[in-house]
Amino acid sequence: MGRNITNIDGIKISSIHSGMYKERRLDLSLVEISKGSSVAGVFTKNKARSDAVNVTEKNLKKRSPRYLIINSGNANAGTGKNGLSDISCYIKEISNITSCKLDEVLVFSTGVIGERIKYKKIINSIPKLYNKLCNNGWDDLSKSILTTDKCTKTSEKRITLNNNKVSITGVAKGSGMINPKMATMLSFVATDIKISKFELNKLLKDITDTTYNMITVDGETSTNDSSIIIATGKSNVDYKSLKKTEKEIFVKNLKELYLSLAQKIVNDGEGATKFIKVNVERVSTKKLAKEIAMSIANSPLFKTAMFAEDPNWGRILCAIGNIESNVNDLSKIEIYIGNILVFKNNSIYKNYSESKSKKYLKNKNLEINIKYNNGKESAVVWTTDLSYEYVEINAEYRT
Amino acid sequence: MGRNITNIDGIKISSIHSGMYKERRLDLSLVEISKGSSVAGVFTKNKARSDAVNVTEKNLKKRSPRYLIINSGNANAGTGKNGLSDISCYIKEISNITSCKLDEVLVFSTGVIGERIKYKKIINSIPKLYNKLCNNGWDDLSKSILTTDKCTKTSEKRITLNNNKVSITGVAKGSGMINPKMATMLSFVATDIKISKFELNKLLKDITDTTYNMITVDGETSTNDSSIIIATGKSNVDYKSLKKTEKEIFVKNLKELYLSLAQKIVNDGEGATKFIKVNVERVSTKKLAKEIAMSIANSPLFKTAMFAEDPNWGRILCAIGNIESNVNDLSKIEIYIGNILVFKNNSIYKNYSESKSKKYLKNKNLEINIKYNNGKESAVVWTTDLSYEYVEINAEYRT
Repeated sequence: MGRNITNIDGIKISSIHSGMYKERRLDLSLVEISKGSSVAGVFTKNKARSDAVNVTEKNLKKRSPRYLIINSGNANAGTGKNGLSDISCYIKEISNITSCKLDEVLVFSTGVIGERIKYKKIINSIPKLYNKLCNNGWDDLSKSILTTDKCTKTSEKRITLNNNKVSITGVAKGSGMINPKMATMLSFVATDIKISKFELNKLLKDITDTTYNMITVDGETSTNDSSIIIATGKSNVDYKSLKKTEKEIFVKNLKELYLSLAQKIVNDGEGATKFIKVNVERVSTKKLAKEIAMSIANSPLFKTAMFAEDPNWGRILCAIGNIESNVNDLSKIEIYIGNILVFKNNSIYKNYSESKSKKYLKNKNLEINIKYNNGKESAVVWTTDLSYEYVEINAEYRT
Repeated sequence: MGRNITNIDGIKISSIHSGMYKERRLDLSLVEISKGSSVAGVFTKNKARSDAVNVTEKNLKKRSPRYLIINSGNANAGTGKNGLSDISCYIKEISNITSCKLDEVLVFSTGVIGERIKYKKIINSIPKLYNKLCNNGWDDLSKSILTTDKCTKTSEKRITLNNNKVSITGVAKGSGMINPKMATMLSFVATDIKISKFELNKLLKDITDTTYNMITVDGETSTNDSSIIIATGKSNVDYKSLKKTEKEIFVKNLKELYLSLAQKIVNDGEGATKFIKVNVERVSTKKLAKEIAMSIANSPLFKTAMFAEDPNWGRILCAIGNIESNVNDLSKIEIYIGNILVFKNNSIYKNYSESKSKKYLKNKNLEINIKYNNGKESAVVWTTDLSYEYVEINAEYRT
């Protein structure tokens, strides 16, 4: 629809309405990856995960993929033997039409769990998708993967390394069932840098841990989370020949792009009226810092207080107290709403102003800062409030 | 107010309006326990717990208590040094007035976190409370401990053992911040049986594990959860001299009483429109069975689907998949909505009727049954749905 998302040389995309949804909207995409690309992925830790994820992880280990087939409207999870056999049918058709090998295809699905996927509609769409493949399909891809999302999530970077241009483009979807563990719902990022699969995997895992794995809307990890990165190597830049400082520039930009996509998912969190950064500092271990931040971010009482713009900090303290890890000493904790110190020395701060807090909470973008004062590690989690609309959206999802 | 809750010989109670709340309502109770009673308690595992809980647990270890002082309207948690010193002040007054020792008093508080308790109002009320002590104060006690609760929770049993009458009476409170870990918000049970503190402790721990520790409203464990049982020994029945079958009758009745109180808390869960029993059977370990049941019961997506009377069983499967424990094989799981088989052999059951499920979900009392088919252990968790009203109540709690 005319938005200029940066194309990535070596990536072709097409999207159509295949009939996954009743309404006429894009719901199926095919992505073609040029030979010689490196591809890495991380996937959901949910134990009831979709066969789409199983097939994708297996194929990715075996070969460098040539095609991604991506549908919304159906998660193909909890679908028993049909799940895998339906996927096999349309992988076979992709192989027939494109002349690729069966295990050079990765499969991604998102939508309702437990209903059989309309695999014939996918099969029937493949010739058309193949004929439509083009360089500037990112915008349509970003639309075709949406479910309860209210808006598309895209992000891009153009950087110069070693006097050559490198581009990175990414799209993601996700709005509910967001508490990614190893990846978010669906995310596709491509760059034209040349980089080995080994290095790319390492980068993806590191970056995911501080971006997608640090957002939560509702504490629910989906059955279909998949995050894929493709490096086509079509630019003149080879990662391994870069100087250390230039590598750092690339990684910094890649991380910014992932963070931007992650934050866009939270911003579009189901029913969200607030975008909340929970920042936990000076903790003995990273794991504990994340546990504290997640305990606050997933607390329904904290989230409803934020929705009500009520500085009910007792709920923050209660959430901190509810971590599983065995810690005894909460006496050094400081709790800040924005930069307003609320709690110190185990009780309310003497100069705390509730009226200032209330005023601050009227903002859409909020920060909760926790200083644990017991170490040097930190964690940042992004989340939303809990509103009437979250209940409304999820009460009416299928009906 | 005339309700005939069974008195327990050896227990005297009085309740008054002391001014913890602005509105005129009972908010402070004193309980007198006769000498020679056995008392046992279990307490919250929240790490930010109230000094009331700390003092109570410490005193209970040292001596057999003579008095309980219980207030609603303020949790006295997150109150720093004032927390303990305020408690000390009113314990001292109780000691003065009643001539008991300082560490013969247990303290219980429930209400908002982080605000200093109006300890002077408590001190001023103690002479009046002491003068008002009477045998039939259980009904007023059940009212004075309420916060966001819509109704009182009481339960009682009268049984005959060894040709002698034994009575058990209990009251509890709790509506939000309900995901007890070792005890619920506040619970007071008394019986006139004679039993050692050691035996009573053992009974309380065992029973709590299958009653209060198996309910959840919102996955939040409060800073003040305390559950106390008192055995006055005023009946003619001595537990240790009972036959095995009679001991079993007593334990069965005691457990039924606790279960009844636990279920009343869930029934009064904040914003609850449904009362849901999640029953997980045939699991390899009790721990895993509880983990699965709690994962379903605490899933906001499952809870909103129940609110909407939508048999969106994919969310149940997703919640099962989200347990932390390392299990690979979900292939034997059967999911039932009520007794309607929905999911088997990894996919939707061939004779599943969605219209039957929808009809079933119109009931107020619902059962979700999971057969894991991998062992002999089981767990039952009771919970509520997630409604607009939960958000409303918690958005407006302090404002």
